Amino acid sequence: MKRILLTVAYDGTEFHGFALQEGVRTVEGELSRALQELTGEEIELTGASRTDTGVHAYGNLASFDTASTVPPERFALALDPLLPEDLRVISSEEVSMEFHPRKTGWPKTYEYRILNTERPDPLLRRTSLHYRGALDVKAMHEAAQALTGTHDFTSFCSVHSLSPTRERTIHEISVERDGPLIRIRVTGSGFLYHMVRIIAGTLLDVGTGRLQPSDMYAILEARDRARAGRTAEPQGLILLGYDRT
Amino acid sequence: MKRILLTVAYDGTEFHGFALQEGVRTVEGELSRALQELTGEEIELTGASRTDTGVHAYGNLASFDTASTVPPERFALALDPLLPEDLRVISSEEVSMEFHPRKTGWPKTYEYRILNTERPDPLLRRTSLHYRGALDVKAMHEAAQALTGTHDFTSFCSVHSLSPTRERTIHEISVERDGPLIRIRVTGSGFLYHMVRIIAGTLLDVGTGRLQPSDMYAILEARDRARAGRTAEPQGLILLGYDRT
Repeated sequence: MKRILLTVAYDGTEFHGFALQEGVRTVEGELSRALQELTGEEIELTGASRTDTGVHAYGNLASFDTASTVPPERFALALDPLLPEDLRVISSEEVSMEFHPRKTGWPKTYEYRILNTERPDPLLRRTSLHYRGALDVKAMHEAAQALTGTHDFTSFCSVHSLSPTRERTIHEISVERDGPLIRIRVTGSGFLYHMVRIIAGTLLDVGTGRLQPSDMYAILEARDRARAGRTAEPQGLILLGYDRT
Repeated sequence: MKRILLTVAYDGTEFHGFALQEGVRTVEGELSRALQELTGEEIELTGASRTDTGVHAYGNLASFDTASTVPPERFALALDPLLPEDLRVISSEEVSMEFHPRKTGWPKTYEYRILNTERPDPLLRRTSLHYRGALDVKAMHEAAQALTGTHDFTSFCSVHSLSPTRERTIHEISVERDGPLIRIRVTGSGFLYHMVRIIAGTLLDVGTGRLQPSDMYAILEARDRARAGRTAEPQGLILLGYDRT
């Protein structure tokens, strides 16, 4: 028996999120099915991030145990013909039997993409949020810096969250214009339910001038979801990956 | 009565091409339906480029005549709620009653995108061709230069083409690496059926070393479709637009 770790990329548009759910198309469901076809075994996957419906990933992680003789690093290529085109295993490797994808302590980075153009772009509609008005990217970046460090992020957490604690650490956050796109990048040790999307929605309010960068401190301190901005739409969110160093 | 010109962008993945066809979803079909809903008139569209199934556009053109009182430049926004998300009118304007989208003489530019990475990218699969092997981009660019100018492009034209003449002019062509993408850009006064995709397929053969840049002259002179490379897949092709200057 050995434990295999997969690095997984997907276009989340047509998945009902990562986590297995009866009767709907999920990343975990498609991946388990393909692995069972490949190995002939019952496969139980453990995912690192349970991304929501419509959210994308370049570097989500999932592990499973197998007695298969497929060489560990061959799983990625061997799964290509068994997976749908919107889901690819980027790499595969053997890890120790103690490895758990949610207990690595590896920081992860999300990107939220805003397409800031007068007109929408049909080719980017699945992977960005379109916003046509003027946005002050410098103010958004400045506001975001209030979130770095360890805080109680209750204001930036869905009221439906089941997390027992709301304390999380953001290592780094930046807001930058890149051609027609505004990229919000957040690296942290863990994120609450909808946290990055609420941060994006709140930074949009800063961009339009509805909020000032200095308002971020009071929003954080309030520990009240109603004080932050809206939950930005899922299609702009991409889990870029985990930093293993 | 006035004539309106639309600049149209679409994700071609789920369209059976631009041109109206009974019983299938086409760009012209969706656009005509939306215009009829908006104006209450029977609308007959004239498109500039009849792109194929799976081919995308940022700047295709289409014109129609209307007695509607909608201000000419308002059509773009007014059509947003009536069109599917994979099709947008970028801008609209009044043109003279003599204007014909296929008789402007405006050069147009296509881009063919090759994603040259070890592993496929689910987020770029709809808008690029994935090729994992090494490609000599400098050789591809050099080879492409043989195509500039006015030539008989029979070797780079589908045998199913109905064009009476096979002479066309390429003003400019370039092959450049842009991060993980290789972009082939071709500007010309007109293109034969499948011409840009056959050019892309042939340049791929140059990139792998199967053909030398100097082979391009003999391929052109042969006036034989069988001498050029394959017709590269449609999803890598994007009509960037027309140069009105």
